[in-house]
Amino acid sequence: VTVERASFFASRWVPRPAHVAETAGLPAGFRAAGGFAGLKPSGGADLGLLVSDAETTTSAARFTDSGAAAAPVLVCLERCDLAELRAVIANAGNANAATGPLGYEAAARMQAGAAETLGLPPRAVAVASTGVIGVPLPVELIERATPQLAGALAREGDEPFARAIQTTDAFAKQASLQVALPGGGSVRLAAQAKGAGMISPRFATLLCFVETDAALAPETADLLLGVCVKRSFERITVDGQNSTNDTVILLANGASGVRVEPETPDELAFGEALDALLRQLALLVVRDGEGAARVGRVVVTGGHAPAVDGVARAVADSPLVKTALNGGDPNWGRIVQAAGAALPGTAPLALDVSIEGVQVCSAGGVVPHDEAELARTVAREEVEYVIALPGEGHETEVFFADLGHGYVTVNAEYTT
Amino acid sequence: VTVERASFFASRWVPRPAHVAETAGLPAGFRAAGGFAGLKPSGGADLGLLVSDAETTTSAARFTDSGAAAAPVLVCLERCDLAELRAVIANAGNANAATGPLGYEAAARMQAGAAETLGLPPRAVAVASTGVIGVPLPVELIERATPQLAGALAREGDEPFARAIQTTDAFAKQASLQVALPGGGSVRLAAQAKGAGMISPRFATLLCFVETDAALAPETADLLLGVCVKRSFERITVDGQNSTNDTVILLANGASGVRVEPETPDELAFGEALDALLRQLALLVVRDGEGAARVGRVVVTGGHAPAVDGVARAVADSPLVKTALNGGDPNWGRIVQAAGAALPGTAPLALDVSIEGVQVCSAGGVVPHDEAELARTVAREEVEYVIALPGEGHETEVFFADLGHGYVTVNAEYTT
Repeated sequence: VTVERASFFASRWVPRPAHVAETAGLPAGFRAAGGFAGLKPSGGADLGLLVSDAETTTSAARFTDSGAAAAPVLVCLERCDLAELRAVIANAGNANAATGPLGYEAAARMQAGAAETLGLPPRAVAVASTGVIGVPLPVELIERATPQLAGALAREGDEPFARAIQTTDAFAKQASLQVALPGGGSVRLAAQAKGAGMISPRFATLLCFVETDAALAPETADLLLGVCVKRSFERITVDGQNSTNDTVILLANGASGVRVEPETPDELAFGEALDALLRQLALLVVRDGEGAARVGRVVVTGGHAPAVDGVARAVADSPLVKTALNGGDPNWGRIVQAAGAALPGTAPLALDVSIEGVQVCSAGGVVPHDEAELARTVAREEVEYVIALPGEGHETEVFFADLGHGYVTVNAEYTT
Repeated sequence: VTVERASFFASRWVPRPAHVAETAGLPAGFRAAGGFAGLKPSGGADLGLLVSDAETTTSAARFTDSGAAAAPVLVCLERCDLAELRAVIANAGNANAATGPLGYEAAARMQAGAAETLGLPPRAVAVASTGVIGVPLPVELIERATPQLAGALAREGDEPFARAIQTTDAFAKQASLQVALPGGGSVRLAAQAKGAGMISPRFATLLCFVETDAALAPETADLLLGVCVKRSFERITVDGQNSTNDTVILLANGASGVRVEPETPDELAFGEALDALLRQLALLVVRDGEGAARVGRVVVTGGHAPAVDGVARAVADSPLVKTALNGGDPNWGRIVQAAGAALPGTAPLALDVSIEGVQVCSAGGVVPHDEAELARTVAREEVEYVIALPGEGHETEVFFADLGHGYVTVNAEYTT
């Protein structure tokens, strides 16, 4: 079944690659399910299970580097073979973070229960959680629900699975792609993500699970996932808050019979598809940033890589830039201020700033520009800022959510 | 005239030193004035002038380290003798930042005009600006208003001066103190500050001018100001945004006839008074943080100084912690998340967290606590968070504003 969903590649910043078509459902050899353990006060779906039926499955994973990494992250790092994962069990409604040794034990039981139900060794089962921090996880609810969930596993289970890992997400973040490789083969690639803030401990966390029926060597899976995560989830911010639970896992089971070999045109084409998939999912997370109305992209160039990255992140995380974006206010002085703050001791900093192609600042000073034209461009749904620092050779980008009343409402007024 | 204003030392975090009494007006030998140059669209007071009449005046100064430091900051650094300042000219309504070489020239003209009017060398006159970034400063308006302002200089001019340097400030931030020194002398100490965000380019910037009729060697003035700024204005945040224009200047003219010598009980007592003055002013800036309703203090201890400082700033600048403070929500998981994010790669981080004396987290995991009691304590106007990282020997604090709808309204809806 091929369903053309014009909505997935919706951003001008992530064009659909020509060899990629949208489809539906999981790749061959994968099954998933979503169900109810009873962790959410709302009674919503809160437990997801994902499995690859092929013994030859390879995998790769990336996790938060937070010093307060949640118990499921620690269990993945310490008790999984991250290159040979076969399954994922993930819950929403409780992050199992800041829960101490009992939390670690609970995550290990969650893993063991899923492994037993699926007939897999525990080290082949990854664990992920999202939700409130600092509340003991009632793991017995998860252990009770796991066998029922296993009974519901299906190739069309990607949508229920994606729903079950959501928290404050306003819309689903998933896609299924058909990827035509230059060598003649065709493979499937799917992903389910959740996240409505880089972190919002009572509600959200970034999780993303990616499945493909291509055959990938573990090193290839790791390389491709690493590069694509760097270009997607590591280039976004809603509120600058690194999560305790961030988890991204890629499973490749080879069920298509097509092997993607290293350093071939096939690998390049597969990588392009994975890159577009994760970048668009990352943009959906930003667009769903708690209360966000609009998305900004800041591009920074210059001769010094740390300065380029520091300025991009400073601008993207500035509440003054974010409120201006929310208000549709050009207010480029806030861009200069944020850039200057990121580079202490460099005054006078000769930077250029353009907004949607309108140059507003040259060598650190204002240049005459059409204010009315500028005001029109910054009122659109996506706004692009380009900053040129002195020098050449480095370029980076960060996508960011605006900051509006919705963020305050979600995070201040929704008290517990 | 001694007026007891119970309101100045209003915070439990800054007790009034026993040898300090509140009074009014400038110390002997100082005059100030506030007036109208026509820089603010509202037509409000926007130009302030401050002068010491004693030739023996010494001074010290601190400025923003922003790479985008404004023209008046660059003029102070390049064209002033910062140890022998006699006067300050300061405007609100235009920051003269991101204005290029023409902005630098305008700041120099502002300095030269005030120097000529006051009969001082330009290098004895400091310049400060606050307001919109990236708009050329109409310096001729300032040049025209300066002589009139000089005619209005008076020892009671501290209040008009303080009003003239305000932007979005909701209330005045000034104080006049009488300081009894253990050596038997008595000196006066006054200050006028403005700031309603660490930075909000269209509206605010931190400025603070301090006057004393004590005689201080330039080295003593510099040492005392440096230490006290580190303990006050460098320990606060409204929105984590370092300004292009931050300026703090201390003038000491010796008109009391009392000299404060280095390494004496008098220096210690004078330093305590200056410390209390600047800390309370800093707290007033936080309390006046755009739209802020409540003030938090985070205290962090531990064995590694950069970790201690990094965690304190991460917590104080976390929009999740700040919205929780706004909402009166204990939500201590957000504290753990922010601390963990500031210390990547350290999981599992064994930190303790207490809120208003109620321990909620021990060695990184939740501990049972009285949730109702906790909810009551975090609903107060000032809330204190204590975080113990592993190890001993280092302690720091940061005061921070909450994040509520008022901040968004000021910064997003007030478009230009």
